[in-house]
Amino acid sequence: MNDNTLSPTTAPLPAAPDPTPVSLLGAGAMGTALARAWLAAGHPVTVWNRTPARAERLAAEGAVVAASPAEAVAGGRLVVLCLLDDASVGEALDGVDLTGRDLVNLTTGTPAEGRTRAAWAAERGARFLDGGIMAVPPMIGAADSGGYVFYSGSSELFDEHRATLAVPAGTVYVGADAGFAALHDVALLSAMSGMFAGVLHAFALIRREDVAPTDLAPLLVSWLAAMAPMAHQTAAQLESGDFTEGVVSNLAMQVAGNATLLRTAEEQGVSPELLAPYMSLMERRLTDGHGVEDTTGLVELLAPRGD
Amino acid sequence: MNDNTLSPTTAPLPAAPDPTPVSLLGAGAMGTALARAWLAAGHPVTVWNRTPARAERLAAEGAVVAASPAEAVAGGRLVVLCLLDDASVGEALDGVDLTGRDLVNLTTGTPAEGRTRAAWAAERGARFLDGGIMAVPPMIGAADSGGYVFYSGSSELFDEHRATLAVPAGTVYVGADAGFAALHDVALLSAMSGMFAGVLHAFALIRREDVAPTDLAPLLVSWLAAMAPMAHQTAAQLESGDFTEGVVSNLAMQVAGNATLLRTAEEQGVSPELLAPYMSLMERRLTDGHGVEDTTGLVELLAPRGD
Repeated sequence: MNDNTLSPTTAPLPAAPDPTPVSLLGAGAMGTALARAWLAAGHPVTVWNRTPARAERLAAEGAVVAASPAEAVAGGRLVVLCLLDDASVGEALDGVDLTGRDLVNLTTGTPAEGRTRAAWAAERGARFLDGGIMAVPPMIGAADSGGYVFYSGSSELFDEHRATLAVPAGTVYVGADAGFAALHDVALLSAMSGMFAGVLHAFALIRREDVAPTDLAPLLVSWLAAMAPMAHQTAAQLESGDFTEGVVSNLAMQVAGNATLLRTAEEQGVSPELLAPYMSLMERRLTDGHGVEDTTGLVELLAPRGD
Repeated sequence: MNDNTLSPTTAPLPAAPDPTPVSLLGAGAMGTALARAWLAAGHPVTVWNRTPARAERLAAEGAVVAASPAEAVAGGRLVVLCLLDDASVGEALDGVDLTGRDLVNLTTGTPAEGRTRAAWAAERGARFLDGGIMAVPPMIGAADSGGYVFYSGSSELFDEHRATLAVPAGTVYVGADAGFAALHDVALLSAMSGMFAGVLHAFALIRREDVAPTDLAPLLVSWLAAMAPMAHQTAAQLESGDFTEGVVSNLAMQVAGNATLLRTAEEQGVSPELLAPYMSLMERRLTDGHGVEDTTGLVELLAPRGD
């Protein structure tokens, strides 16, 4: 078995001689993709879904359909939750005996929900692992899709079920704190939202021009991939506390450059609403006297320390 | 000579037997880096700068210092402009005879400024090429730095001086419209701004947590590089006009997911100001009845067609 805690593995590991039975609560698009990946790898799968029709489609593919969450939980020690939201987890498992169960919660949630749910599971005598899925359903079970799942919480649970968890997607364990999977998940999705917002602004700029979007796209993709590693410098500056370390284009220069971006948006008839807040924050930081620094200090404006 | 119109070349091409003399107006950080790259490749360089001290540093490295823009322009047919802004170009060259000169304008500006300056150059009997530099000064003249320059305007000028232009950085010619270099430049920088805003939000989310920024950075970098190619799908949708084409996570699903991102920001004490405008725009588009589409339609909200 590979050590896959450091980097995600995307290819399913070979199933153990006796594949671990998986009980799955939730057969939405993601739950269905997960069930199919485990079924394809030879794992017995018991599935429950609030709307029975979705679970029954999986029955035709070899899953056992449970009539209730309690029946699904009784189907095996490893219980995977892939429900609408954290409240749905509480409702589905209300009153169900979880003693000695291993709960893997792949339901989307916040770090605080992950932590609260971990305490809730501990009170009920279950081990708990929270997960944050960095993939869309078509990537689940597909070799080399690049998709993976952040896990945090019980390292014993993770170690014991690692091979099973690695079947649908790569695994990255990020710590014993059950909130860390969601924290990492949301951090990456938030960064991606910013990138996509920037990409849409870029396409808006050429909307009235004789430039083909498919000609701009490869330039955008390679530029963003080339510039993404600037995050390493930001991280190093955050750790050293020296926001001038290695700075090439300082805040004062970047604020000056922003004027060209905003004037171009105006010329092209593009609303500046997606870029303006970042630029305003840069100006605030510049006004505070940090012109020779990198933009890293904006983190202090976004998240003032509460202590 | 390589055909380097399709993708940027980053390694300097071998200098021609008699390297073309370059007259450079502007010896700021970028101008100085350009001058050094041409000097290192054996090109005679004449430099003028409003503040003489900066030009004189280059004299020690082999450049000829011109006392005026007119004197610099007289130094050779190829005249490269790397000044503070478009107005500085007009001021520096006011009254200077440009007949028969080849002007390459690397001064930062907007598409409209590029177009107006091209007409201005034509009136004065000069060929004109506008450039948008996708690099910071330390990348200039460095092999494999990934830096390059967008060029647009006179293809004759570009073809004739391509080897000289390829010395400091790769070259990408994007069309005869002199505004296209700035348009491409600003489009890529705008997209990058969005990405950096997202990255700073991500780092803000872990500010009060026991997660090292240098542990998060590699995850962010590989995730962003993996997701950047989504721009290809956006481009294809913009060209087909079918914003549901290939959609995996539709607008309705993404809006639902945004709630988790916003709640997490609130839990972590992070201002949502960098993400909120994108999310608001998604909600507007959803309210308009486009829930089954991709986010591509946001381009229509950002840049309503004027016709």
